[in-house]
Amino acid sequence: MADDYQLPLNGNGNGAALNGNNNGHHTESPMKPLLELYVKASGIDARRIGADIFCQEFWMELYALYEIGVARVEVKTVNVNSEAFKRNFLGAQPPILIEEDKQATYTDNREIEGRIFHLAKQYGVPLFEKDQLVEKCIEGLYRNFKLFLRAKTEFDKDKKEPSLIEAAPPQIKTHYNRIVEQLNGIDQLLADRRTRYLVSDNMTEYDCELMPRLHHMRIVGQRLLGFDLPHKFTYLWNYVLTAYRTAAFIESCPADQDIILHYKEQLNLFYHQRESLQTPTKTHTIPSRVLDDITRLGIAASN
Amino acid sequence: MADDYQLPLNGNGNGAALNGNNNGHHTESPMKPLLELYVKASGIDARRIGADIFCQEFWMELYALYEIGVARVEVKTVNVNSEAFKRNFLGAQPPILIEEDKQATYTDNREIEGRIFHLAKQYGVPLFEKDQLVEKCIEGLYRNFKLFLRAKTEFDKDKKEPSLIEAAPPQIKTHYNRIVEQLNGIDQLLADRRTRYLVSDNMTEYDCELMPRLHHMRIVGQRLLGFDLPHKFTYLWNYVLTAYRTAAFIESCPADQDIILHYKEQLNLFYHQRESLQTPTKTHTIPSRVLDDITRLGIAASN
Repeated sequence: MADDYQLPLNGNGNGAALNGNNNGHHTESPMKPLLELYVKASGIDARRIGADIFCQEFWMELYALYEIGVARVEVKTVNVNSEAFKRNFLGAQPPILIEEDKQATYTDNREIEGRIFHLAKQYGVPLFEKDQLVEKCIEGLYRNFKLFLRAKTEFDKDKKEPSLIEAAPPQIKTHYNRIVEQLNGIDQLLADRRTRYLVSDNMTEYDCELMPRLHHMRIVGQRLLGFDLPHKFTYLWNYVLTAYRTAAFIESCPADQDIILHYKEQLNLFYHQRESLQTPTKTHTIPSRVLDDITRLGIAASN
Repeated sequence: MADDYQLPLNGNGNGAALNGNNNGHHTESPMKPLLELYVKASGIDARRIGADIFCQEFWMELYALYEIGVARVEVKTVNVNSEAFKRNFLGAQPPILIEEDKQATYTDNREIEGRIFHLAKQYGVPLFEKDQLVEKCIEGLYRNFKLFLRAKTEFDKDKKEPSLIEAAPPQIKTHYNRIVEQLNGIDQLLADRRTRYLVSDNMTEYDCELMPRLHHMRIVGQRLLGFDLPHKFTYLWNYVLTAYRTAAFIESCPADQDIILHYKEQLNLFYHQRESLQTPTKTHTIPSRVLDDITRLGIAASN
């Protein structure tokens, strides 16, 4: 008997099956569509989740559908370099969404989102609620971060540790300032709204987009860039804390080591094997000074 | 002085610069955005256009914007296996859209389409006119074709030539029938509407989606599958002829050999080197019997 939700467990490649009805009982619902999401495996261990940003984004959206019982979801990690994968998916790259009942394979991000959008609409799930202000606030943040990442790692190429941002040339500072300005905008928006998520107290696609990106920025920033989300942005950090308390985020989040390796591969950086030797860990805590600020303001993300 | 449109010429990797005002005179317009589209190069020759379906789709959309003078467009072929490319684009795959003025790199199909959509809206170009009927008609056609492609080539694996579809096992016939049924639907729609393109006499995103896919189906069908678009679908063939007379399609269309190689690579088929030894050709004609039918019906696509 198929369960409603299956995801790969780090280390054994398949595993935990959860029930979509949140009550511990299994109710067969033959009409509930089964959606299989193929996500990129980690370069360290093909049974672990890799850090492709779109894979996590769609995983979060699908989790939202599973969570309220409108879909069954199975997530599978795939080694994109294996011949079996290449032949099976005709050269397509993850994320790939398969809906066996409809014999449909969605390989284009527009198609995947279109299918999730359609399901959300059909079941009245407000996952795709439009919000122009949020859209404007978060648009381009990750793109800007990647520009910063490339420039800063290029500048730091022969250094043992990332240099201080204060000591970087103006061009890199410009990249940095643009990101901080945009993070400030998001902090402001959250301060004005006092909502748990960007649009309201419900998670929407915007959160599925922003949460993984903020987390990547944080993990990669620390290890490769000498960068952190500025601690003064209390509302932004509280939002990060919300991510760490959101099942859709936690379930779909790769280990720190897999995130670091992902960007190292992309940047073609010298590969120390450090990540592959470490026991996988997940940073899902925030700096204690920031946590104090959040507590003082009384805005802590509820569980 | 930059020209409005630049595309790679087969063989020399860069070249023809066209003017967006259609009058032979060059008008400087500093506000006109410059959009650079990076498309996958052919596996035969990195200076030739590869057959990635999304690359051609976006190229056609961008051409539509260029054609009426709202954007400058440059198309560049990239060898995705080169270290320079990997590092420069941080692991992203073409199509990639760059807008230097905004320091923006769009690597997600949703983002690329979003940017083109926004520009089309801004300048009142009806490229994204919605049409539910068209959407329903063309949805999933290419996905179904790929299922057929995979099953049929697997079945024909050890044969010298593609087998006849009549002789194929029921499962493959089911795939085939589904495609023919859908092509019939498109033929009917075009017969009912008597329009040049799917929605009206103006090209829309639906045409940018369908035209390359129909052409691929035709080229790959002939060489690898013993399949052709059924000749009785006169309106559908007339639509294919329209593609062959549409600048956006012609400009962005890879050579037959590059299309065949693209699918052979995806299917991991034995590589005869046949394609790479041939002079690149483009099939932009239709069977003469079908052309006679079109002429008899008096529905020929105008130039």
